[in-house]
Amino acid sequence: MIERLMDIDRSITGDGVRRSLEMLKEKVDFNIHEIPSGTKVFDWEVPQEWVIRDAVLSDETGKVWADYEKDFLHVVSYSEAVDKDLTHDELKLHLYTSNFAHGIPYRTSYYKKDWGFCVDGNAYKAMNPELKYHARIDSEFKDGSMTYGEKIIEGDEDEYIISTYCCHPSMINDNVAGMAMWADLLASMSKTKHTYRFIIAPETIGMISYLATHDVSKVKGAVILSHVAGPSSEPPNFKQSFLGNSYIDRVARQATGEDGTPFTIRGSDERQLSSPAFRIPTIILNKGGLYGPYYHTSLDREYYPPDYQATFESAKRMIEVLEGDRVVESLNPSCEPMMSKRNLYPTLGGDNQNNTDTENLMTVMFNSGSSLLDIAENTGKSMDELIKTSEVLKKEGLIK
Amino acid sequence: MIERLMDIDRSITGDGVRRSLEMLKEKVDFNIHEIPSGTKVFDWEVPQEWVIRDAVLSDETGKVWADYEKDFLHVVSYSEAVDKDLTHDELKLHLYTSNFAHGIPYRTSYYKKDWGFCVDGNAYKAMNPELKYHARIDSEFKDGSMTYGEKIIEGDEDEYIISTYCCHPSMINDNVAGMAMWADLLASMSKTKHTYRFIIAPETIGMISYLATHDVSKVKGAVILSHVAGPSSEPPNFKQSFLGNSYIDRVARQATGEDGTPFTIRGSDERQLSSPAFRIPTIILNKGGLYGPYYHTSLDREYYPPDYQATFESAKRMIEVLEGDRVVESLNPSCEPMMSKRNLYPTLGGDNQNNTDTENLMTVMFNSGSSLLDIAENTGKSMDELIKTSEVLKKEGLIK
Amino acid sequence: MIERLMDIDRSITGDGVRRSLEMLKEKVDFNIHEIPSGTKVFDWEVPQEWVIRDAVLSDETGKVWADYEKDFLHVVSYSEAVDKDLTHDELKLHLYTSNFAHGIPYRTSYYKKDWGFCVDGNAYKAMNPELKYHARIDSEFKDGSMTYGEKIIEGDEDEYIISTYCCHPSMINDNVAGMAMWADLLASMSKTKHTYRFIIAPETIGMISYLATHDVSKVKGAVILSHVAGPSSEPPNFKQSFLGNSYIDRVARQATGEDGTPFTIRGSDERQLSSPAFRIPTIILNKGGLYGPYYHTSLDREYYPPDYQATFESAKRMIEVLEGDRVVESLNPSCEPMMSKRNLYPTLGGDNQNNTDTENLMTVMFNSGSSLLDIAENTGKSMDELIKTSEVLKKEGLIK
Repeated sequence: MIERLMDIDRSITGDGVRRSLEMLKEKVDFNIHEIPSGTKVFDWEVPQEWVIRDAVLSDETGKVWADYEKDFLHVVSYSEAVDKDLTHDELKLHLYTSNFAHGIPYRTSYYKKDWGFCVDGNAYKAMNPELKYHARIDSEFKDGSMTYGEKIIEGDEDEYIISTYCCHPSMINDNVAGMAMWADLLASMSKTKHTYRFIIAPETIGMISYLATHDVSKVKGAVILSHVAGPSSEPPNFKQSFLGNSYIDRVARQATGEDGTPFTIRGSDERQLSSPAFRIPTIILNKGGLYGPYYHTSLDREYYPPDYQATFESAKRMIEVLEGDRVVESLNPSCEPMMSKRNLYPTLGGDNQNNTDTENLMTVMFNSGSSLLDIAENTGKSMDELIKTSEVLKKEGLIK
Repeated sequence: MIERLMDIDRSITGDGVRRSLEMLKEKVDFNIHEIPSGTKVFDWEVPQEWVIRDAVLSDETGKVWADYEKDFLHVVSYSEAVDKDLTHDELKLHLYTSNFAHGIPYRTSYYKKDWGFCVDGNAYKAMNPELKYHARIDSEFKDGSMTYGEKIIEGDEDEYIISTYCCHPSMINDNVAGMAMWADLLASMSKTKHTYRFIIAPETIGMISYLATHDVSKVKGAVILSHVAGPSSEPPNFKQSFLGNSYIDRVARQATGEDGTPFTIRGSDERQLSSPAFRIPTIILNKGGLYGPYYHTSLDREYYPPDYQATFESAKRMIEVLEGDRVVESLNPSCEPMMSKRNLYPTLGGDNQNNTDTENLMTVMFNSGSSLLDIAENTGKSMDELIKTSEVLKKEGLIK
Repeated sequence: MIERLMDIDRSITGDGVRRSLEMLKEKVDFNIHEIPSGTKVFDWEVPQEWVIRDAVLSDETGKVWADYEKDFLHVVSYSEAVDKDLTHDELKLHLYTSNFAHGIPYRTSYYKKDWGFCVDGNAYKAMNPELKYHARIDSEFKDGSMTYGEKIIEGDEDEYIISTYCCHPSMINDNVAGMAMWADLLASMSKTKHTYRFIIAPETIGMISYLATHDVSKVKGAVILSHVAGPSSEPPNFKQSFLGNSYIDRVARQATGEDGTPFTIRGSDERQLSSPAFRIPTIILNKGGLYGPYYHTSLDREYYPPDYQATFESAKRMIEVLEGDRVVESLNPSCEPMMSKRNLYPTLGGDNQNNTDTENLMTVMFNSGSSLLDIAENTGKSMDELIKTSEVLKKEGLIK
């Protein structure tokens, strides 16, 4: 799936997104929506669709320096059409490179009409400043629509958003892996007590459009999947919400076992979800951080393995924690219950009070009035054992 | 007194407790109460009295491996009667030992009818698995009552509980020393502004019974005396309440000069006192921690000196802090009072403002609206000097 | 100016203060007020004026050990008149020295009628105990008034006090530099949104009198200038208010880049300003701390340079922070504003989001509802750049 998604070019609008979402529907069913070009969404406007057919940068000797057919990254995304000769000096105003000999940078020019080519460090240095160059981009803009996907898993209690973005072209860690993992996570969902809004949309303008057209006033937290296939040596982690210790941060902390990295204003769709009118605490679930050395270059696809299994497990644990957490209400609040008459307690006293099961039972009973997540944080016990313990106690009629 | 208490066997019910409390009454007067067997107390029931007359474990060669006459710990407390031959394999289901060559463990089986013997590590290893053994326990259960002691020192302000437990047999640190110290502390009390409920009862079932039969809704905190005669090298310390920084924790912090060890669910009667229906913040005043290597073995009485003087001093300081703490209300709130006209202030200015008495006077006046305990915590000054200072200021009519 | 102020002796009352304030009026206009001797101010009374004409301590050989004409510090401030022979033992009850061979201490006896001489360590040791001494102080007390200066810079929002004290004689760091800097700071003020009460008064009795005769109920914080010309190697810093993290502490933290030194009860006029009836959070802006080794000795004037430029800059930054801080209210709270259509945003996406200006704009918009000072503390950005950013956003109509 990841390989097939790598073969499709994507931008914030257009057929690339549409074909990618259709491909993900092979894994799991969700709804695809279109918002017409020109639609006003808060301070923004849904842009036209970008159609790109071909793009070649060559010099007067006929040598080709950048070719869209070979690598989508060679063209600045959303470039307007061009077909002309230029001096090297003129070209340089439209030419971008990276710090790496073999790394082609990823650039976009969504909100100002412009065009450009991207080449790796070797090519950039090797270009002869004395030659004439020819830049040809066969592209056009047309009215159409912006595409996003959504599936709502209905529950009775709180609402959460789980989103990723689908506007980046052929890089694995950012964000083809996130797209695939989003579909896998959606496929893994069963009946839940909370409502989960799964959203896959172009970054920024997609989430702005979503927020402009949906009531999210009941949403208690959001999780963005991004950079989920980072370095093998690094564990899944998360970028903290702007609040740092909101409920969704605490859930992520339990699920990953990591503290999270501090919130920064630079980021992804948390910039919209947490903006003043919404203030939805939003974390980014990732693996090994968000901006490594290969960020937004073609080296992303060479360096990072197409493997998001560990991050996927953390995401599922987040769902388990969200679903399993509850406030414990004791039905036996006056002193301890007599564990032995219920066969819950080792009957031989003396040195055996440090039995783990007993300790868990006592811990949950004692902390009536707290949530299991509170208890996990205060005692260092895992949500998994606390959830199991609370089920035993519920069966015994000791809590509700 | 400690030696005489060591000569009495005790369990959660029966004559051992009764005789022990009578012995403590030689030190100080308090009331002894009885609760009949079978009385329902919350989720529990007051158990029958256990009468133990004799218990011997011997092998077919006549060698005696455990003898209640020699050491009360040789029999599992609350053992039912038995008189039969067993193979070594059958015996092992009723045989307990410790990690120490010369340590007999302390075991109980209060809430499941069972029987057993306890032997030290050397004996356990030396027993020949090929021999037949004879287990004889001459015991019975009978309806009677559970015994506890109580004395209320009446005051006008808040209520506090000071308790210890009297159900453990011949071990010094846990808890014969605690029983003796409880009586000494009670004997040291004079007229107080707060009410103090001194309680001595069997652990767990005794405190549950007390809570089931008394109104403790005005109790602001509790102190349990346990393990008060720990290692000579260790200072008095306390186990924090479940709140960690409640008023009684703060008082204990001032009185011991220690931070306290963190709350754990494993413990003594704080499990009942702090249960959801009561939530009385409860600390355990101890010396050198609660569970050392010799916990619940016969080595407790060899390793720990029968000396609780340092812990006793800490307990008395707790009473002094509780009694001496008060909210300072300034009668001269606008700027500093003129100390010199009251002969409270060195009259020669310049370098002498760091006079300690002056600084104390200024500190208490400045912090009007705070309690002395707040001030002690914020400034590092001792409660002792702050209490003395507030008395000087009160005499001068500067505070009330 | 500092040199000229060094030539005037000052005490808590009298012509010295009057002449000093007149001298400061050469720098900037402010009002001079007089409060008659004997006026009751809270628990205190305004003292009489002290007139000192001459003072000499000599021995029977005619050698002069202390001479008011040579150094004002030789006489205990507010000494009563004396003219008599004494033995060395009698003299010692009225003789003060410092730990330094060449340091004359500064001593006062304001509130108990007494007299005394101060000599350096060398002189103290060299005095012959066998000789007779003659002490002559030609001074008198007379009804008059206590003098202080005040200027109110009127604004529409909150009120702040900026004060210093003018009762110390010829020492630079404590506090001739503070007096001069107070006048310079007052001279630097232009139209402000807050009200600033500039006060220059004798320490303690001056501020007590001020508080007894003015309504300061709207004052939100105070800054005392003291020890502003400390060691060259030390940066400007501040003594924290009794609250430690009040608004004026936070402003001082931004302005100095230092955390401040903890509040202590020993201090200057914060003892009155923050007393229970007023509780005005008050910091002392200083350089290198308040009590160095040369505190209240003649070495103050040798050791410390008459240079308060760095502290003056910090004080001006405090005013800038007070004036520039405001709560940001977004006019575009739903998602981010589209920066590119306003030419506020680099239009080429990809790697350039870490542009500092852009990040500042996004940071201020995102944190709508917070004050700029909150944002500075949470992000580590400087108040200076945040104030500039908020002005850009206001011009664009994005915030108010």
